[in-house]
Amino acid sequence: MKQTESFAYSNLLGRSKEVALLNSVSSHLHWDQQTYIPASAGYYRAAQISSISTLAHQRWTDQEVGEWLKVVENEEITDVAAAANAREWRRSYDRAVKLPDRLVEETARETSLAHEVWFNARNASDFSVFAPCLRRLLSLSLDHADCWGYEESPYDALIESYEQGGRERDLSVLFDSLAPELSGLVLAGEAASGSGGLPEGCYPKHAQAAFNEEVARAFGFDFSAGRVDTAAHPFCTTLGPKDIRLTTRYDETDFTSSLLGVLHEAGHGLYEQGLPENDFGLPSGTAVSLGIHESQSRLWENHIGRSLEFWQKWFPVAVVHFPQLKQSTPEAIFRHVNRVQRSWIRVEADEVTYDLHIILRFRIERALITKELRVEDLPAAWNAEFERLFGMKVPDDAKGCLQDVHWSGASFGYFPTYTLGNLNAASLFACASKEIHGLEENLRDGFYAPLLSWLRNSVHRHGSIFSPGELMERATGNPVSSRAYIAHLQKKVLALATL
Amino acid sequence: MKQTESFAYSNLLGRSKEVALLNSVSSHLHWDQQTYIPASAGYYRAAQISSISTLAHQRWTDQEVGEWLKVVENEEITDVAAAANAREWRRSYDRAVKLPDRLVEETARETSLAHEVWFNARNASDFSVFAPCLRRLLSLSLDHADCWGYEESPYDALIESYEQGGRERDLSVLFDSLAPELSGLVLAGEAASGSGGLPEGCYPKHAQAAFNEEVARAFGFDFSAGRVDTAAHPFCTTLGPKDIRLTTRYDETDFTSSLLGVLHEAGHGLYEQGLPENDFGLPSGTAVSLGIHESQSRLWENHIGRSLEFWQKWFPVAVVHFPQLKQSTPEAIFRHVNRVQRSWIRVEADEVTYDLHIILRFRIERALITKELRVEDLPAAWNAEFERLFGMKVPDDAKGCLQDVHWSGASFGYFPTYTLGNLNAASLFACASKEIHGLEENLRDGFYAPLLSWLRNSVHRHGSIFSPGELMERATGNPVSSRAYIAHLQKKVLALATL
Repeated sequence: MKQTESFAYSNLLGRSKEVALLNSVSSHLHWDQQTYIPASAGYYRAAQISSISTLAHQRWTDQEVGEWLKVVENEEITDVAAAANAREWRRSYDRAVKLPDRLVEETARETSLAHEVWFNARNASDFSVFAPCLRRLLSLSLDHADCWGYEESPYDALIESYEQGGRERDLSVLFDSLAPELSGLVLAGEAASGSGGLPEGCYPKHAQAAFNEEVARAFGFDFSAGRVDTAAHPFCTTLGPKDIRLTTRYDETDFTSSLLGVLHEAGHGLYEQGLPENDFGLPSGTAVSLGIHESQSRLWENHIGRSLEFWQKWFPVAVVHFPQLKQSTPEAIFRHVNRVQRSWIRVEADEVTYDLHIILRFRIERALITKELRVEDLPAAWNAEFERLFGMKVPDDAKGCLQDVHWSGASFGYFPTYTLGNLNAASLFACASKEIHGLEENLRDGFYAPLLSWLRNSVHRHGSIFSPGELMERATGNPVSSRAYIAHLQKKVLALATL
Repeated sequence: MKQTESFAYSNLLGRSKEVALLNSVSSHLHWDQQTYIPASAGYYRAAQISSISTLAHQRWTDQEVGEWLKVVENEEITDVAAAANAREWRRSYDRAVKLPDRLVEETARETSLAHEVWFNARNASDFSVFAPCLRRLLSLSLDHADCWGYEESPYDALIESYEQGGRERDLSVLFDSLAPELSGLVLAGEAASGSGGLPEGCYPKHAQAAFNEEVARAFGFDFSAGRVDTAAHPFCTTLGPKDIRLTTRYDETDFTSSLLGVLHEAGHGLYEQGLPENDFGLPSGTAVSLGIHESQSRLWENHIGRSLEFWQKWFPVAVVHFPQLKQSTPEAIFRHVNRVQRSWIRVEADEVTYDLHIILRFRIERALITKELRVEDLPAAWNAEFERLFGMKVPDDAKGCLQDVHWSGASFGYFPTYTLGNLNAASLFACASKEIHGLEENLRDGFYAPLLSWLRNSVHRHGSIFSPGELMERATGNPVSSRAYIAHLQKKVLALATL
């Protein structure tokens, strides 16, 4: 039976698109909440978002969706995309209906409460303020894991929300082998980095915006189907198949901060713009996982935006926007954006130290979820692990275990996807470098179309048809390892040492 | 029985707020469509809006709403706001359920189609392109009128959408007496206006935005519950009880254009910000009609923003933003923003000629709806009536009967509310001037709080508790007439002649 002729499949397709439309409206309300909303409008906005989200949830967990799924699963599905859609619908339907309403509501209430508590605790640098919230959120997360089910570790059930097939055991092995290699590179990188910096003077916001847009456009980001706005916490969100919104923030003493932020978000945006438009709202038209999404942002940010070729191309353009740069050189900017320097704060970390921050968080949250670590012992465990990884003492909780928002949102299992993104990015870029004839020259010329085509073809167009692991293997010919990533970082450190 | 104890009343209250929330989400999607949306995102946005609007419509036309209404109507209602809510819910429920789905859908389709056809017809200045659309829209509008019912004229049923209690017969009498008085004032005003103008040079957009915000803030517009953005067609929209969005557009050769636009929209916004917040989504917390809404915008735009006192206060501030104004004077700016000059285009018209444009449109659309005028004869009728009112020939349809968007949206009955707004504004301002001790001095000092309080108390806080006519009579002690308005225009023309 052809899938287009199946009544149940058509119903699922319609419902999936309907739910995606409602979710896109929700995303729109969120986007405005982070960009333009007046100060006093937050309370009603929360009600608007919750109302539309509830509607979307109800439409998807409707009993008839389960009935259609059963029918479709008894049909012979020959079309690859249709088979993937049926598989992913089942996955998301099961995960949604397995949670009792009480748990969903309580989690929504607790996380919304916890956000403010965390914010105050961080400002006061006092973990004890946040500890009771964290205890409740951990307990709710374990309830989630129990509802969803798992084979080895409750942490596996939680990772599934962000990275299908991600497993605690595999991540532990991966990170245990990565940590010592990174530690060595950090020391070499710091030694090679020197001091340096940008010429002083104001880098005006409007000039930064113009320059950022010029580069993002050159990468291939379609501004007729997207835009860039200002937000305190940069993000990329999809409000429709032709409506991808990026945000950034500006530091008028350093134009590279907003630039690299925009290139990162544009990487996410290029993935979204490369998904099959007609499949918007279906798994076959949806990004597959956070680890794959992050590979796209990191690739454009780090492998392109932090490369010497990039600055050889764009330095003369940057000088037009920021005349004080005449006192600098492409090589000096390259050193500036690649400076290796251990520090306490993840979001300010350089490329080489970044994953040590992730490994730290993975080890801590894994131990919390498996109850090897008690909440009251978290700060001590964090500080000890930080010192092991970074060789530095943590001065206080604000610069330590309270710095990130994620746990206040009960997002346990999210952090590892940042490092998976880095590994995926390096593997993809290494493969693209082999397969695209003259890529290095392209990049020196600022001609990004061949690279974007390669990513479109290898990653974007497949939506969620393949699992993250399958997708990477099809794209690169090999399962993902840390080899390409370590090689990339070694090359970077070598360049810093010899330039 | 107290209304708070009635089950049916509580249900209606909840449903009314739920529908208002959905409509506020729709408004949000519309707002973005006019301000920030990327060029290619329009198609999906239309689907988002239509989906949320349909949902709101379904929730309000649900059979149980009708049943609750019947119950409530058999209860004794002592509370004034509750009684008004029951009355207005009935009105809006009846108007909604009386339309068959087919008619609603066909009208949505035809108007969305007609907009593009009108746009092209206007660009080509060729009415014949738009005529077939207009015929269909008139026929659909007559179907609406038949479904809704009316006593004298189908036009009455259409006006009800914008101005409860508005009647063709009353408007005809009013406009027939107004027209000759206005024509006389136009000639006197033109003779008194002279040439004049602003000093040349650029009035930068960002300086205009800063100045506009300073003035709107002084009026009392709360920027923690609202903001100003840029749009091709200025408007004010409510996205929540603490979220009122204004838009404007900028002409860098004339800062008064965006300023008066913002003051107009801020007038709408002050009304919305003055509605009882706890009644958001209920008739008792909703603006009562377009004629009352427009009275608030016109009052702040024309009675304040175009007064000599205003420019005596704000000229020195404007000079700081636009140094070239040093060559000018408050009196010269007053002349500039009040210059009387007949022209073809309504949206560019000055205060004195403006209502002649409305009277023209009222006469034409009234005749179309009552079938006294055939669509194919519209341009000739327009041109003849224009010459009668303005003493000028119309050069082409683009500058004539194709200039406005309204008819392409089937908004027959909307135009008269502009002039009703002018009459209401003048009556309210005349009364406020009598009742507020020292108002003229307040206005010279830029101290607007007493005037805003008076409007809050007389108009804003009442929501839709009273009909527009009752509200005006309670506020001013008299039924609305054109007396105060004509006196205001005479005073303006006299000032131009003698200053």
